[in-house]
Amino acid sequence: MEASPSLVTPDDAVARLRALGFGERETEILAEHFVDADARGKPGHGTSRIDWLASWPGLDPTARPERVVAEEGYERWESRGALGYLVLAAVVEAQLAWPPARARVVVAHNSAPTGVLGYWARKLAEGGLVTAVTATSPRRLGHPEGGPPLTGTNPLAIAVPSSDGEPIVADVSMAKATHGDALAGRAPLEDIVPFGGDQAYKAFALAVGLQLLVEALAGDGLGAVLLVARPEADPVPAFRALADGARLPGDR
Amino acid sequence: MEASPSLVTPDDAVARLRALGFGERETEILAEHFVDADARGKPGHGTSRIDWLASWPGLDPTARPERVVAEEGYERWESRGALGYLVLAAVVEAQLAWPPARARVVVAHNSAPTGVLGYWARKLAEGGLVTAVTATSPRRLGHPEGGPPLTGTNPLAIAVPSSDGEPIVADVSMAKATHGDALAGRAPLEDIVPFGGDQAYKAFALAVGLQLLVEALAGDGLGAVLLVARPEADPVPAFRALADGARLPGDR
Repeated sequence: MEASPSLVTPDDAVARLRALGFGERETEILAEHFVDADARGKPGHGTSRIDWLASWPGLDPTARPERVVAEEGYERWESRGALGYLVLAAVVEAQLAWPPARARVVVAHNSAPTGVLGYWARKLAEGGLVTAVTATSPRRLGHPEGGPPLTGTNPLAIAVPSSDGEPIVADVSMAKATHGDALAGRAPLEDIVPFGGDQAYKAFALAVGLQLLVEALAGDGLGAVLLVARPEADPVPAFRALADGARLPGDR
Repeated sequence: MEASPSLVTPDDAVARLRALGFGERETEILAEHFVDADARGKPGHGTSRIDWLASWPGLDPTARPERVVAEEGYERWESRGALGYLVLAAVVEAQLAWPPARARVVVAHNSAPTGVLGYWARKLAEGGLVTAVTATSPRRLGHPEGGPPLTGTNPLAIAVPSSDGEPIVADVSMAKATHGDALAGRAPLEDIVPFGGDQAYKAFALAVGLQLLVEALAGDGLGAVLLVARPEADPVPAFRALADGARLPGDR
């Protein structure tokens, strides 16, 4: 495998983010996400994104997201110009600080880019909360029968805590290859189509459903929707036993 | 296409359900679901299931589901021995009668079989509620690399209302062919594997995530989880315009 010139060390990542104007806490959040993405084999979402951030339209390193509705079963967040990574970090922190008694739907408006959704879902699961999260991204997937791009690659991540300490984290993009893969030179642009081959209509249908779910709840622009809930049961250990050592979603 | 001997008329469906002991209202609910499934090209979930119901273990046509927790942002339902179809019908009716101000998570325990999830999601969307719903089914999907069945075919249905009157309804099973298809003789049993061909690990990951999400929230046995929410926006008309006449999920 070729060495990637854009892969940087954690210290480099911090220095580059500080140079973009991010404060200490925001730098820590962003660096941890990017370094984790590299470590989990998702370099398209990793430290290679730091240079790309410099070209982010209207990048405002001082912007902070705001929770504009906070109810037991529902929260709404506005990015207020903050990067989606920082919006989701704030959402995660808030859920862990004030978890729902049962379940809560959290909607984030104007919250791109969100990076690796499984990363945020894993943090919630490690804090004991069952999580499902989806987010829209720029329209890149067309109808399997052709036509213009209609939906983002719209990943769905689901994380479930486990008493054995290691949550299950499923994190699936509806695209054959993600834009991150293409950015990292690991996939050709023409692979940014719904996955599934002759059943690509299934991944396309999921991408459409998730796209409109987010748009209906968050409003215009790119957004994210999370379901966070306290588990009533602890199904992961028995599931791992049934799988008898097979590698499960989210395992390293 | 061969005529299916098990396809029955709506009147026949009603008569057969009454003969199984179902009351007038329950018969109406079940017949409408089965006839709609036939009409939408899903005969594996259609009237062919009526004879199959006769062999349902412990079938109790008089059982009624019960809502055991009813909060603004969360509901929990127990089937109390009622068929999943009737549980979801009661859940749908309750959401439309008492919709969430913002959003609500609804969990159903012991709620098999649920039939066509898109059917229930469509009803909620027709009533103005954005809906995502998933449900577990008997374990039939194995790891793409082999081994025992680990998850159900675990469909995910997402329905979004539209001011143009026709909701978008995405309804995707994680299996290449559903058990219903196999029951109806439309697919071989060996097609009950995660869809996606050489990317079947994606559908498998979604099936695992949905399986454990439902099990963590509902507890043991088969269950269902719904997210229902009032839309903040009306994205479907613009999406249809962008798609420029292409057939979208849920269109006939």
